[in-house]
Amino acid sequence: MTAHKPTTSAELATETEVALERAVTSHRHHALFSMRASKIKQSAVRDVFDISLRPGLVSLAGGNPFLQSLPLEKIGGMAYKLVTEHGLTALQYGGGQGIEKLRVQICEVMAEEGITDADPDNVVVTVGSQSAQDVACKVFCNPGDTVLCENPTYVGALNTFEAYEVNVEAVPMDEHGLIPEELKRRIDEVRAAGSSIKFLYTIPNFNNPSGITLAAERREEVVRICREANILVIEDNPYGLLRFDGHPIPPLRAGHPSDVIYMGSFSKILAPGLRLGWALVPAHLQRRFYLASEAVTLCPPTLNQLLVSEYLEGHDWRGQITTYRDLYAERCAAMLAALEEFMPPEVSWTRPEGGFFIWVTLPEGVDTYPLLYQAIDAGVVFIPGAAFTPSDKPSNRLRLAFSAVAADRIREGVRRLAPVIADAIAAG
Amino acid sequence: MTAHKPTTSAELATETEVALERAVTSHRHHALFSMRASKIKQSAVRDVFDISLRPGLVSLAGGNPFLQSLPLEKIGGMAYKLVTEHGLTALQYGGGQGIEKLRVQICEVMAEEGITDADPDNVVVTVGSQSAQDVACKVFCNPGDTVLCENPTYVGALNTFEAYEVNVEAVPMDEHGLIPEELKRRIDEVRAAGSSIKFLYTIPNFNNPSGITLAAERREEVVRICREANILVIEDNPYGLLRFDGHPIPPLRAGHPSDVIYMGSFSKILAPGLRLGWALVPAHLQRRFYLASEAVTLCPPTLNQLLVSEYLEGHDWRGQITTYRDLYAERCAAMLAALEEFMPPEVSWTRPEGGFFIWVTLPEGVDTYPLLYQAIDAGVVFIPGAAFTPSDKPSNRLRLAFSAVAADRIREGVRRLAPVIADAIAAG
Repeated sequence: MTAHKPTTSAELATETEVALERAVTSHRHHALFSMRASKIKQSAVRDVFDISLRPGLVSLAGGNPFLQSLPLEKIGGMAYKLVTEHGLTALQYGGGQGIEKLRVQICEVMAEEGITDADPDNVVVTVGSQSAQDVACKVFCNPGDTVLCENPTYVGALNTFEAYEVNVEAVPMDEHGLIPEELKRRIDEVRAAGSSIKFLYTIPNFNNPSGITLAAERREEVVRICREANILVIEDNPYGLLRFDGHPIPPLRAGHPSDVIYMGSFSKILAPGLRLGWALVPAHLQRRFYLASEAVTLCPPTLNQLLVSEYLEGHDWRGQITTYRDLYAERCAAMLAALEEFMPPEVSWTRPEGGFFIWVTLPEGVDTYPLLYQAIDAGVVFIPGAAFTPSDKPSNRLRLAFSAVAADRIREGVRRLAPVIADAIAAG
Repeated sequence: MTAHKPTTSAELATETEVALERAVTSHRHHALFSMRASKIKQSAVRDVFDISLRPGLVSLAGGNPFLQSLPLEKIGGMAYKLVTEHGLTALQYGGGQGIEKLRVQICEVMAEEGITDADPDNVVVTVGSQSAQDVACKVFCNPGDTVLCENPTYVGALNTFEAYEVNVEAVPMDEHGLIPEELKRRIDEVRAAGSSIKFLYTIPNFNNPSGITLAAERREEVVRICREANILVIEDNPYGLLRFDGHPIPPLRAGHPSDVIYMGSFSKILAPGLRLGWALVPAHLQRRFYLASEAVTLCPPTLNQLLVSEYLEGHDWRGQITTYRDLYAERCAAMLAALEEFMPPEVSWTRPEGGFFIWVTLPEGVDTYPLLYQAIDAGVVFIPGAAFTPSDKPSNRLRLAFSAVAADRIREGVRRLAPVIADAIAAG
């Protein structure tokens, strides 16, 4: 990395993409690619995945949950019992919608946040909520359709949307989340331009990457605007139960069973390596959603479903969430304190009420993409802000994750990052 | 089921589809569905999934592997150890391409069949090979493109293809598999009609549902025809190692690393509930394939990958495959003997050299779809042949699976089925 340091996002993109594209475009099979294939790109998060593993480096890049607090002995025992005593079921094919008992339990998990009317028949278990996003695109999106999202939004969702050749339109947020007036204005603009809008994709709690939460008083209005425009709401809520203090704000889905497809995940409240998430789908959309999911994976992994079911039944999962909450609250506080201590005065950041991420804003005109390589030389990794928007423009923002790193390492990471940022500001 | 018995395939389709379609089409969200959504249908295999579980019924429908012979105690112990000693890895996110060690081991599995030059870098681990089929469509298929397949072919692949709005063209088989001349003719016809052909999807060993194997002497020719037409070959080979006698025939991929995407699965040689399969992709297509896979599921389940890796390392998996082979050979023999004993003389069937299925042919004009319900009343389930072709026409064929049922129950199932078929022939 030190040998050749590109200095702009454009150059960085060029470096890897061009070489790989050249190998492909010269082959006679190039003519066989679908139109969508060229739109599927490596995400910035994955770009730094391997780098993040270098010893000595402080990774504030990946949003990995901290699994050390899990009851591994107990979960291991459950896995043993499932395979030895129920292996003929646990290792066999299951139904495409997911195991019924788990779907009932998923309704209990959602009730913790305020969705009290969920019917297990309308729950579709998926291979992570990533897979649920893919299925939603499959069911609703034609090429050229528009999907609305927050600016910024989850990079994995952007990758999924791009694979369906949709037009992704980002709606501005402020410190209270998505701005309803901007949502309305964007809907009118897109429609005036002749594109069909299929859904709004939103992460209302502790948005990835911004950490911002959609204010309770805006939630009704967001759903109302979408309903009146006949646009579905896809509510992606993997972090909702990881609120540091106080009661959760009811999800958009809570009062609106017909207007919202709610997506949940066990990745943040239990373990991402099991790859289990779910969608709670309006009853009239359930069949199409479930069949599309089945066409992709046949069925979610049975052993994993039974293991999560056993965990929910046999362990104090609510207590485990409290443990996670306290841990992440402490780490978030450590990161906020370090930012306060080390960052130059021109830099600002969000103050999340939960989740995994803080969103850092540099002065206008400073591109955070080339800073990544200087940061790696300084011993710290982050994700440049450009990854989280559908536009190709440089971004003066970056995402820091506090979930996976101990408090003292978070402080060290921020301490290493600060002079890189200060130099960039001075140079700009 | 006994109360209302539809008598034609058309009526049967009507019964379930129309009621469900009505609920959806009257809703204002109907306008939001993608063009592909209406093409994704319930498969006949899934239709009978619940019915198959009724006590007393002999199910010759589902192609479930027989898991009783697995070393469950040992696999359970491996799962326990993975979670308790390596839980922080096993329960965490992994790379999108799959764990490297497992990809190396997958190359060893493929070597058993004659692919000796596979590079682990070109292996992409997927959520079953079903997911690999979905990714292949994502990377190669635009709506209106043509995909070629065998007639008959795997119903799950047909469902996946239909979700991509491709034109699926079935190429006739005889007792030696896909007929090269027919393949060539069909390619010419489709091209003359102006459609772009992306790949041939083939199950060369013990085809699901027909049990037919593509003869060794035809394999080179099939690849050559496709290469000359610049069409990829997708070789789906979940059953290849389950050949009852003799050495495996080298896969189409063996001599053709640039022309064939090879798909393998642990569902039949280990356990489908883990949902792990893979694609071995030509080097020049690897990146696009891997990125598209990542956009769907982020990464395959880590725990499951490590468990399969442990199993391959710590257990005599080749011996386990031999156990499976002998078991399925015995069951296949039992089914062939029962067909001989009970079926009317007008009925014929295939004699598979491996795999899970026998394909039964009734006289022309007898539709096997309505017979399904009479068979259920008689205490036996099968899958009607129409499920395995892209056409909507009635079929005089049906699939019987011998994999999941003990030999005496197989005999009983065929005994119950025979008079239903005899009556239908007499009535026709």
